[in-house]
Amino acid sequence: MRAVDLIIKKRDGLELTKEEIEFFVNGFTRGEIPDYQASAWAMAVMLKGMSDQETTDLTLAMAHSGEVLDLTDVVPLTVDKHSTGGVGDKVTFVAESIVAACGLPVGKMSGRGLGFSGGTLDKIESIPGYRTNLSKDEFKHQLGKIGLVLTGQSGDLAPADGKMYALRDVTGTVPSMPLIASSIMSKKIAAGAQAIVLDVKVGLGAFMQTLEQAQELARLMVSIGKLSGRRVVGVLSDMNQPLGCAVGNALELREAIDTLRGHGPQDFCEHCLEIASHMLVLGDKTTTLEAARVLALQALQSGKAYEQFKTLVITQGGDVRVVENTDLLPAASIVETVKAPRSAYIQQIEAREIGETAVQLGAGRERKGDPIDYAVGLVLHHKVGDRVNRGEPLFTVHANDAAKKQAAVDRVLAAYQWSDEACPALPLFYGVIS
Amino acid sequence: MRAVDLIIKKRDGLELTKEEIEFFVNGFTRGEIPDYQASAWAMAVMLKGMSDQETTDLTLAMAHSGEVLDLTDVVPLTVDKHSTGGVGDKVTFVAESIVAACGLPVGKMSGRGLGFSGGTLDKIESIPGYRTNLSKDEFKHQLGKIGLVLTGQSGDLAPADGKMYALRDVTGTVPSMPLIASSIMSKKIAAGAQAIVLDVKVGLGAFMQTLEQAQELARLMVSIGKLSGRRVVGVLSDMNQPLGCAVGNALELREAIDTLRGHGPQDFCEHCLEIASHMLVLGDKTTTLEAARVLALQALQSGKAYEQFKTLVITQGGDVRVVENTDLLPAASIVETVKAPRSAYIQQIEAREIGETAVQLGAGRERKGDPIDYAVGLVLHHKVGDRVNRGEPLFTVHANDAAKKQAAVDRVLAAYQWSDEACPALPLFYGVIS
Repeated sequence: MRAVDLIIKKRDGLELTKEEIEFFVNGFTRGEIPDYQASAWAMAVMLKGMSDQETTDLTLAMAHSGEVLDLTDVVPLTVDKHSTGGVGDKVTFVAESIVAACGLPVGKMSGRGLGFSGGTLDKIESIPGYRTNLSKDEFKHQLGKIGLVLTGQSGDLAPADGKMYALRDVTGTVPSMPLIASSIMSKKIAAGAQAIVLDVKVGLGAFMQTLEQAQELARLMVSIGKLSGRRVVGVLSDMNQPLGCAVGNALELREAIDTLRGHGPQDFCEHCLEIASHMLVLGDKTTTLEAARVLALQALQSGKAYEQFKTLVITQGGDVRVVENTDLLPAASIVETVKAPRSAYIQQIEAREIGETAVQLGAGRERKGDPIDYAVGLVLHHKVGDRVNRGEPLFTVHANDAAKKQAAVDRVLAAYQWSDEACPALPLFYGVIS
Repeated sequence: MRAVDLIIKKRDGLELTKEEIEFFVNGFTRGEIPDYQASAWAMAVMLKGMSDQETTDLTLAMAHSGEVLDLTDVVPLTVDKHSTGGVGDKVTFVAESIVAACGLPVGKMSGRGLGFSGGTLDKIESIPGYRTNLSKDEFKHQLGKIGLVLTGQSGDLAPADGKMYALRDVTGTVPSMPLIASSIMSKKIAAGAQAIVLDVKVGLGAFMQTLEQAQELARLMVSIGKLSGRRVVGVLSDMNQPLGCAVGNALELREAIDTLRGHGPQDFCEHCLEIASHMLVLGDKTTTLEAARVLALQALQSGKAYEQFKTLVITQGGDVRVVENTDLLPAASIVETVKAPRSAYIQQIEAREIGETAVQLGAGRERKGDPIDYAVGLVLHHKVGDRVNRGEPLFTVHANDAAKKQAAVDRVLAAYQWSDEACPALPLFYGVIS
């Protein structure tokens, strides 16, 4: 078998076999197939597509390019969630605490933020002392002991995916459905997940800008699940405006903690309950979504989910005092609340602009490895559809630099669109694919 | 400007500007744009195409990636020819000798053979002592002095093309019309050609297997010529069966010398006169093809073309005795003539099979840099359409290895298709594009 022949086959729109895909992925991982062949192949995949079976074979080959965690000796069925990334998405903290509090263990490996999209790992590291580099043994031990883990992705997991993603990023081959789907699913499978709830974001602040794209991505990942023997559900959710109110690491963590204590923003709380409910059904805690929702709401309202989160923080070495008193979280030196410039309905809050403003303030990174500022970010006081009166607080900027603060004020103001007519609120969800 | 953005633009089927193409080609040549970006770009070009203007910009950018020869101080108008490659193509030796003998100087840089297609440079090196590595000064001096040069391509010419071709070869991006056309034309332009006759082969033994493909390639190269201020004519010629009778380096050179002496195969002689005539018109030696043909025939029949070729060999250090007595050329130890297995009409002689058999005998190379055997090859005694009687000589194998000889006999016999009905001869040409 020669790599060039597999490139030619895909270039001509033919279907690669499982053996051919394994040959390519393994050769690439070991460095025997050079980057210049892998990038030509990725471009051919991007322009000619892949069948669901090919995408599944690619997913499994990438998952097995390194160690695949087997958690069955610790938990009977491992449920995971994955968000395709957006602005203000701090669902993991709440949903997984709820699910674990319901007695369904959750062991999650999260990623860092890049560009306008934040990362769960960065947010939780706002807590001093919190360790995100657990070893495999620590991971399994903690999962068995407290039923909840939230750590970084081990470098050993799906190394082919890491290598391929770095290459796609610089060769114009990022927005390929089969490559996106296999990248997500390979990491989840390598991390031991047998059931996965996919939170597929759609809208101005998401990678999938249209509902059709999001549906196709969800459909493809559900299909990979079926073909590889994993339970997968795709939830299509809105990302035209930020989720909840807070955008920025410590600010988002505080909002998640507030939610666990019973006073989070309504849209965000609803989102977390929905994701948690799907996880509870997939994990066989109950059979219907309605029953799952009752369980989830109980766990949240009883404070059990909050206790579960505190246990997580303590176990991973974090200073639990900042959870109990979120005023102790990293705080910005400049906090300015901007008032509504007019009395009108909010027609749009462009999520991507909000996300990029937060990056400019220092909350995110333009390139891998850039340092980040946990304290800075934005809090929006209204959602799309709200009627706001001139002079009412519209949003608050948390900054550590006066010039950046002013730039953020201007940019965020420009991200709002106003209407004199009443505008509908945005839906939270657009459907479920399973 | 960032390379990845240009890849994305081409991936999305948009047209690149001259500045963008120059940025990409120059960055690639200098090693600032890595191979993995160039190969993804080449795949995007392969699958999305390029406009004639883009292809011209690419051609000129590659031509100017190194030194562009300026021969105007030596000859007023430089005419060149180029064949897209086939089996038994030894036209250069005869056509260029004719043209030079007519007083139109020809300075040609030729290439080596690869795969089933032979190379002019390998063939002329059958002559002991013949130098194919002339310096630029030697090239210009000789062109001015005797009006004929035949040497190898200098490494300084169009280095971007050399680098890009090596990459295309291993990334499935060879058969792209814009990339093929710009590769050919960039080398010709860098070598100083202002007028070019393109011999575009079509058929079983050519890279272009259909007339439509050959027409498109010829049209594209003529268009590049127009857009870059060069005179270009494309001649579409048959390559379903080998050209002439001989296939193999010294065997082909002998056939060319025979032709220059007035007793070559009729089809081959006709082919050389046609190409030479187009060159004479493009080079302003005369205005019509008919008048050019009269001049060409005169040069051939008078022996002037033969004398011109001998002068070339002597000037480039070759042993002219092997030209005067071709029995002195490298000869194979085993020469076996195979007889016709039946009495019938020849319906097909699959040119590519013949070319690959010659390679197996040692006449060509599978990989760049492989050594070759000048002596071995094949001589076919009949053309498609001929009626042959059982027992008549069909072809002769020249080999230096008994096992290879036998394999060649079997393979060549299988390359013939026979018919009991009369079959038409194949045309020499399918048209001219200008």
